[in-house]
Amino acid sequence: MSEVIEADAVIVGAGPVGLFAVFELGLLDVRCHLVDILDKPGGQCAELYPEKPIYDIPGFPIITGQGLTENLLAQIRPFEPTFHFGQMVTALTRRPDGRFDVETDAETHFIAKAVIIAAGGGSFQPKRPPVPGIEAYEGKSVFYSVRKMEAFRGEEVLIVGGGDSALDWTLNLQPLAKRLTLLHRRDAFRAAPDTVNKMRALVAEGAMDLLFGQVTGLEGADGQVGAAIVTDNEDREHRIPATRILPFFGLTMKLGPIADWGLNLHENLIPVDTEKFETSEPGIFSIGDINWYPGKLKLILSGFHEAALMAQVVSRIVYPNKKILFQYTTSSTSLQKKLGVA
Amino acid sequence: MSEVIEADAVIVGAGPVGLFAVFELGLLDVRCHLVDILDKPGGQCAELYPEKPIYDIPGFPIITGQGLTENLLAQIRPFEPTFHFGQMVTALTRRPDGRFDVETDAETHFIAKAVIIAAGGGSFQPKRPPVPGIEAYEGKSVFYSVRKMEAFRGEEVLIVGGGDSALDWTLNLQPLAKRLTLLHRRDAFRAAPDTVNKMRALVAEGAMDLLFGQVTGLEGADGQVGAAIVTDNEDREHRIPATRILPFFGLTMKLGPIADWGLNLHENLIPVDTEKFETSEPGIFSIGDINWYPGKLKLILSGFHEAALMAQVVSRIVYPNKKILFQYTTSSTSLQKKLGVA
Repeated sequence: MSEVIEADAVIVGAGPVGLFAVFELGLLDVRCHLVDILDKPGGQCAELYPEKPIYDIPGFPIITGQGLTENLLAQIRPFEPTFHFGQMVTALTRRPDGRFDVETDAETHFIAKAVIIAAGGGSFQPKRPPVPGIEAYEGKSVFYSVRKMEAFRGEEVLIVGGGDSALDWTLNLQPLAKRLTLLHRRDAFRAAPDTVNKMRALVAEGAMDLLFGQVTGLEGADGQVGAAIVTDNEDREHRIPATRILPFFGLTMKLGPIADWGLNLHENLIPVDTEKFETSEPGIFSIGDINWYPGKLKLILSGFHEAALMAQVVSRIVYPNKKILFQYTTSSTSLQKKLGVA
Repeated sequence: MSEVIEADAVIVGAGPVGLFAVFELGLLDVRCHLVDILDKPGGQCAELYPEKPIYDIPGFPIITGQGLTENLLAQIRPFEPTFHFGQMVTALTRRPDGRFDVETDAETHFIAKAVIIAAGGGSFQPKRPPVPGIEAYEGKSVFYSVRKMEAFRGEEVLIVGGGDSALDWTLNLQPLAKRLTLLHRRDAFRAAPDTVNKMRALVAEGAMDLLFGQVTGLEGADGQVGAAIVTDNEDREHRIPATRILPFFGLTMKLGPIADWGLNLHENLIPVDTEKFETSEPGIFSIGDINWYPGKLKLILSGFHEAALMAQVVSRIVYPNKKILFQYTTSSTSLQKKLGVA
């Protein structure tokens, strides 16, 4: 276990609502750590539709998810949030001193005065392909992401999928692998045309294999796969030697470990009040798409409002003896100093 | 009384929150009329601090009140709202058919299915100078705004104040007036330097008078002022002939006739629930700075959220038999068609 980080507030989720919470908390001198399973800020917005226009952010007739994320990052820069990307909060427990132990699957350990769950639809998790017994190989020889390319050097690599991830990793791992096979359902790819062309050139050179069909079985023992049984579109079976398999079937949203934190849930959402946006556990708050209250709409703009009201309450937890004066950025020199503009 | 306008929704107040309500209602096919006492959209934002930066609108590290107003106007353009500026809603009563009669001091008469009060701090009203008996002359020979310049032609005009309004009207009315006097507390002006220079040039030419001190009394009868008693900073009294007096002492916010509409009030605010943002009167909603609920913060971003939730309920009033499907602008072609982008 690495060092313990003592934090005012830990925000679970670095989507637009988690980012804006940094702003509202920052105005009240509460410093934030953010944890996100993705490798960058922006959440769904940046992951699922970075280039897709959004029309209902107030004041923006049109903005992309990426554009909104960049604007929010610029807006919170004065408050110097600390990001912990590529990790998932796996445990959240109350300590005897009233604070919370927050632990992630990357062994980051926070002790936080308040926790804000801004996890959107939950955590992004890779979709598991419908292959019997695949669980036994996961994390050992079947992976849903590439953490270290070196782990694939000299291996017989089977990549399954037809999107950007599958094609990008095909090009990146082909030079390292002993032999690389790309398997997709059919001869049509949802990836950048240039990447697809490069893959086809490698196939034409004989530097890799391209197959159409799907994995219907695995051979191996003790978590180490040895071959995949591939059924092609004429229902013929092929045995493909493979010591590493990378299925890229997209991401799905799961509530994930949040379900285990002892919070009341309502159809996989976290009920909160509309004054403080606090969960059934005092000191744990929930804002954005993952919370629920009467009238709730899963709109980014609602998460912004929820962040503002939550911040008032969290600041009183972090500074129990300080009198909080409600001030406006337009007129308060003290807020403007925090923002670095006065 | 002019013709009656049958409306889905009348929004009282065309500040940022009233404007964004047009967007949220428009997505649900509810068309809006907006009434505002000011002569332009933007409310306090545009009237009190058009050039002052705001830092807490989500997604804008910095934006002026004017900039935000212009962006919101662009965002709601597809929904073609009808603006009724320079008028105040004076009467709001429920009709036997359940709709509302909404009447303004400019004799506009709406029959509306729903009314949304987004009146911010209330209506802007001019500050009355502390001159005994001034009420008797108001609207007859003492005015707080210039509706028709011709009403000042050939008159002995006394303008009181040192800000932009006082200086601008000094330059505009000086050519028409028989004689114009500008009175201010001291020889320092909060107006554009160029305007101040032009005024000083007129004084140097002998084309107008400039005095320092304050009005301490009025002479006249039957609402027609004849002279102002001005006490200068050495406590000497002067009698200044004046048949028209224009005091420009700034604007103050008053709840105004809203207090007479039979709604429950809480310290001059309108209590609402946090699911529908409906007042004590079904069909009358209140959003933005003028409403109150536990946790309420007077933030523009909160008004945006309130507008979104209110719109769901108002659309069910306007279309009682239509099934409302909650959709996202990012993915719904039908919403994108309404916005003119698909």
